[in-house]
Amino acid sequence: MSQNIYLSNMELKDAIAVFMDKLGKLHLQKETIKTWDGVDRVTVSPIYSKISSPHYNASAMDGIATFSEKTFEASDRNQVVLEEGKDYVVVDTGDPIPSEFDCVIMIEDLIKVDENKVKIYKSAIPWQNIRPIGEDIIENQLIIPSNHKVRPVDIGAMLAGSVNDIEVYKKPIVAVIPTGTELVEPGTDLKVGDIIDFNSRVFSSQVNQWGGEAKRFDIVKDNYDEIKETLIKASKECDIILINAGSSAGREDFTSKVIEELGEVIVHGVAIKPGKPVILGIINDKPVIGIPGYPVSAYFIMELIVKGLINLYQGLEEKDLKTVTAILSKRVMSSLKYLEFIRVKLGYVGDKLIATPLTRGAGATMSLVRADGILEVSQNIEGLEAGSEVNIKLLKEEEEIKNTIVCIGSHDPIIDVLSDLIHIKNKKYYLSSAHVGSMGGIMALKSGETHIAPIHLLDMDTGEYNKSYIEKYLKDKNIALIKGVKRIQGFMVSKDNPLQIKDFKDLVDKKVRFINRQRGSGTRLLLDYNLKNLNINPRDIMGYDREEFTHLSVAGAVASGNADVGLGVYSAAVMMGLDFIPVCNEEYDIAIPKEYLQMDIVTELIKVLTSKEFKDELDKLGGYDYSDTGTILE
Amino acid sequence: MSQNIYLSNMELKDAIAVFMDKLGKLHLQKETIKTWDGVDRVTVSPIYSKISSPHYNASAMDGIATFSEKTFEASDRNQVVLEEGKDYVVVDTGDPIPSEFDCVIMIEDLIKVDENKVKIYKSAIPWQNIRPIGEDIIENQLIIPSNHKVRPVDIGAMLAGSVNDIEVYKKPIVAVIPTGTELVEPGTDLKVGDIIDFNSRVFSSQVNQWGGEAKRFDIVKDNYDEIKETLIKASKECDIILINAGSSAGREDFTSKVIEELGEVIVHGVAIKPGKPVILGIINDKPVIGIPGYPVSAYFIMELIVKGLINLYQGLEEKDLKTVTAILSKRVMSSLKYLEFIRVKLGYVGDKLIATPLTRGAGATMSLVRADGILEVSQNIEGLEAGSEVNIKLLKEEEEIKNTIVCIGSHDPIIDVLSDLIHIKNKKYYLSSAHVGSMGGIMALKSGETHIAPIHLLDMDTGEYNKSYIEKYLKDKNIALIKGVKRIQGFMVSKDNPLQIKDFKDLVDKKVRFINRQRGSGTRLLLDYNLKNLNINPRDIMGYDREEFTHLSVAGAVASGNADVGLGVYSAAVMMGLDFIPVCNEEYDIAIPKEYLQMDIVTELIKVLTSKEFKDELDKLGGYDYSDTGTILE
Repeated sequence: MSQNIYLSNMELKDAIAVFMDKLGKLHLQKETIKTWDGVDRVTVSPIYSKISSPHYNASAMDGIATFSEKTFEASDRNQVVLEEGKDYVVVDTGDPIPSEFDCVIMIEDLIKVDENKVKIYKSAIPWQNIRPIGEDIIENQLIIPSNHKVRPVDIGAMLAGSVNDIEVYKKPIVAVIPTGTELVEPGTDLKVGDIIDFNSRVFSSQVNQWGGEAKRFDIVKDNYDEIKETLIKASKECDIILINAGSSAGREDFTSKVIEELGEVIVHGVAIKPGKPVILGIINDKPVIGIPGYPVSAYFIMELIVKGLINLYQGLEEKDLKTVTAILSKRVMSSLKYLEFIRVKLGYVGDKLIATPLTRGAGATMSLVRADGILEVSQNIEGLEAGSEVNIKLLKEEEEIKNTIVCIGSHDPIIDVLSDLIHIKNKKYYLSSAHVGSMGGIMALKSGETHIAPIHLLDMDTGEYNKSYIEKYLKDKNIALIKGVKRIQGFMVSKDNPLQIKDFKDLVDKKVRFINRQRGSGTRLLLDYNLKNLNINPRDIMGYDREEFTHLSVAGAVASGNADVGLGVYSAAVMMGLDFIPVCNEEYDIAIPKEYLQMDIVTELIKVLTSKEFKDELDKLGGYDYSDTGTILE
Repeated sequence: MSQNIYLSNMELKDAIAVFMDKLGKLHLQKETIKTWDGVDRVTVSPIYSKISSPHYNASAMDGIATFSEKTFEASDRNQVVLEEGKDYVVVDTGDPIPSEFDCVIMIEDLIKVDENKVKIYKSAIPWQNIRPIGEDIIENQLIIPSNHKVRPVDIGAMLAGSVNDIEVYKKPIVAVIPTGTELVEPGTDLKVGDIIDFNSRVFSSQVNQWGGEAKRFDIVKDNYDEIKETLIKASKECDIILINAGSSAGREDFTSKVIEELGEVIVHGVAIKPGKPVILGIINDKPVIGIPGYPVSAYFIMELIVKGLINLYQGLEEKDLKTVTAILSKRVMSSLKYLEFIRVKLGYVGDKLIATPLTRGAGATMSLVRADGILEVSQNIEGLEAGSEVNIKLLKEEEEIKNTIVCIGSHDPIIDVLSDLIHIKNKKYYLSSAHVGSMGGIMALKSGETHIAPIHLLDMDTGEYNKSYIEKYLKDKNIALIKGVKRIQGFMVSKDNPLQIKDFKDLVDKKVRFINRQRGSGTRLLLDYNLKNLNINPRDIMGYDREEFTHLSVAGAVASGNADVGLGVYSAAVMMGLDFIPVCNEEYDIAIPKEYLQMDIVTELIKVLTSKEFKDELDKLGGYDYSDTGTILE
């Protein structure tokens, strides 16, 4: 093992400052393009018109051009007759005004006498309805300034001013180099250990979206000479170089050594999380950024460092994301070693904006997909308590967040179906769900952090579902219950049930590897209820402590062979191609504060619940009874 | 004249409703594309993962994979030695974990003993630092819903889930057909009556920016058969058809007749201004929009009708522009016949957002370039008083408006230079100017509508500039004066002064065509002051009533031959290639409330005023003395 495991821990802003300082004056490229191709490009210098617009005295109306002095006498009672050729010519909007005439009367104010005579009933004043030369734009007038991002309306004004070519900053060509012997192209038949290279595709999309021109290189193996050759080529052909992976201190990480050989490593390691092991270097006067391999780390390096650089090359000011104030729904711990970036879900519940932290793993691409905003926890803070007021940088439009129904509680695959259908029915509505189990949902309702909470909580005394929990925990909240579905819970096992698992006792007796749901989930309660009834000690079940948050994750663990059995719903077993041994039927309902029943988006939700499309989807999933779905129990 | 001058005056929302109803179900096109090309495209159906990610149990760290039970005894005082091959294998981040091992210890927690032995000083728990199969994404999990606009992070998650192709809505192909015998391509040598076709270029940019695919047709002459042929072709090849001009009731306007012959005209004329004479029709099941020729009318039809249609084809919900509340700085009159759209400049002065209406002419492309927002005046309102609170739809980022210094007052070409330089020096700053004359500037300061007011006001008693006006009109405002420039005012005449104009008396004596500045401008005061001294009756000057708002406009009128002489500054004469007869020197200064002197943007402004770059630009313009520019008189 010949690793260099020591990275620096420089503050982000210092790292960027040192890097920019070393880079010095960037060699911004310029190019001249046709004005009509200019949208979203940035001007190098101010643009002045070359001609006036209009460039001749033009009629502003459809009508006739005439002599104002011949109209002075005209009135309702003294209509004046004008003769074509002698007194007027017919003009359309935009037609030139022959120099002898000095006004235009519009067609609506003319009474036709015959083919070449009209009557008028009011007088005209000089220059009326004439657009004089330069009315809109005067020759040599400033149309748009330097460093201006060209919009379609600017193109109109420039062409009107006969500016047909403009000088703009050239889009920086950005090399995107994926490295790693384990990387394979999307679509390759996967072997164990293969990693699909999607980072380079994400980077390329980001670069193009930010106005750069991505040039993706083929995957480079972890081989010093291959990496070196590629970096030499990229530093000749491109303006900015992004090299992915190989930036941490692992044993095959050559990136920093190659950059050091070909140029200079300015910074290796920044005090942020995720994103710490970034490399900022220079080869051939070009900035080289070594981007960590984990997708979430990579995302933040792209956003925090690369985006600014691409803006600079285009002459653009970087725009900060919009910041809003929100209430943190869960406690967040953070390290004193790093400025930490935490992805959150957002939802307006009542008049409070609630921020719920998402999974923090650096490999969690889905947490980026789900995130509505970013919470920054500064380096000097150890953590933030639930209920704290925090600043969140928005990743979505505020409007979209306002039109999102927040769903926190138990998970069932039908929540995904609901989320999809509500948005299809009305494109402005969204459903966003967090899976924290039934009791988590009850608590979220209690603290006002969610609109709705899907729950399936078995009352061990009465055998009834949900109602008694609402009475016990949410007495003061005035909660209604929207009936959801009846569903089958059972054991999920591999095809043909190779270990012949039949009941809860088998979990201990057959020494199988179990995979559990998290504390507070209805499924966990169901398990514990049965274990208690059967006098089974949970400690005797191998894997009782391995917790997953959704039915699908449990099914996934069984399907992948990481576990032999788990408890969950029928639909999840079917989706993952597993066998299913039914244990019981249960009621999966939606708890909601009565005051929210009037919200438009809730009305829409109930419409979806009772729709044919929803029932069709349930039938496809299987294992659901929807006889009273959508009924409201107040 | 065979015109059809009667258009309907249907309300906008009714017109759109009728049109959409007649169009019926749109035939949205779908296509399958590579996932990595998907950015900004909209999904047709929900996207589910095809594989789990990771698809094998993977190391989350660089380190060793080992047996957790062999580590249980390890502590600081009882370091445990592990042997490669027997107890562990070395793994990098992402490497598969051989199935016999159940945990990973990271490299930072290892002490190297020799080439194949390490010591550990704390125990490991099962599954530590292992990313189990499906940790990020589980097979068959929903990644993104239907009708979702794909972002780079979505591409990452989809590729990780082995979704390499996605079905998205096809970008609608939008025909852009310019019509008009008077139209010429940009770059053509212009003859009187020629109009540069820039509308079709603006439409194309808009269509592409909104996600459509513009297909611009060549200019079509005003010829029934040519228009007919083009519309037939477009209705076969494209999804939406935009045909420009020919939508009003002028004598060569065939559009509505051709649409009627080939299909159906649904609406002709909508109660909005600008934009009234729009045509909404259908040919071959495709929507056809006849767009008025005036650029501002066209702009609103594109924004109000076409944008929504393009969104629909892509499965996108139209996003409303952000609305802010502002104080109207000038009275606005409006017609009871129309819903009226008025372009405004916006500026934060103190804590008030001030909206100043811009030129309302339909041909004013520059008013679109300058506009920061749109004021809608509903059909039932006759006008709005100055000082009214109004809702403005934003065309720019609020942040940009907050970083804009508002400059209302007298015009000089150096204001354009200032505006450009301040933005170059600091890309986040902007200067926005309205030209209402010196007295207008004084009034804007009085009502708190501007940060700064450039003025040049001659005290007829003392011969001094500016000071006495501030004392008289702005006594209670605590105003400072930033010294601007000394500049030469004089007569602007054609090259070689063909009419031999030498002084004010010649304006009457030589019966020349004069072009004046507006009431309240310092230049107008200068004229009136001289006329009074010389006992000249303004009524005896031909053109005394023709008012322009800037020096450049006056120079432009002379240069174009629309006038023989005007009064203005030297630099404007030079820019328009005119001769100049000096009349006097005057002081052009900047009045500013003292409280604003501390604003960052004002500090920046003064830096620019005293910079070498600014003085270089003044030298280029000519006629300026900058010996005390930037000095502050409090």
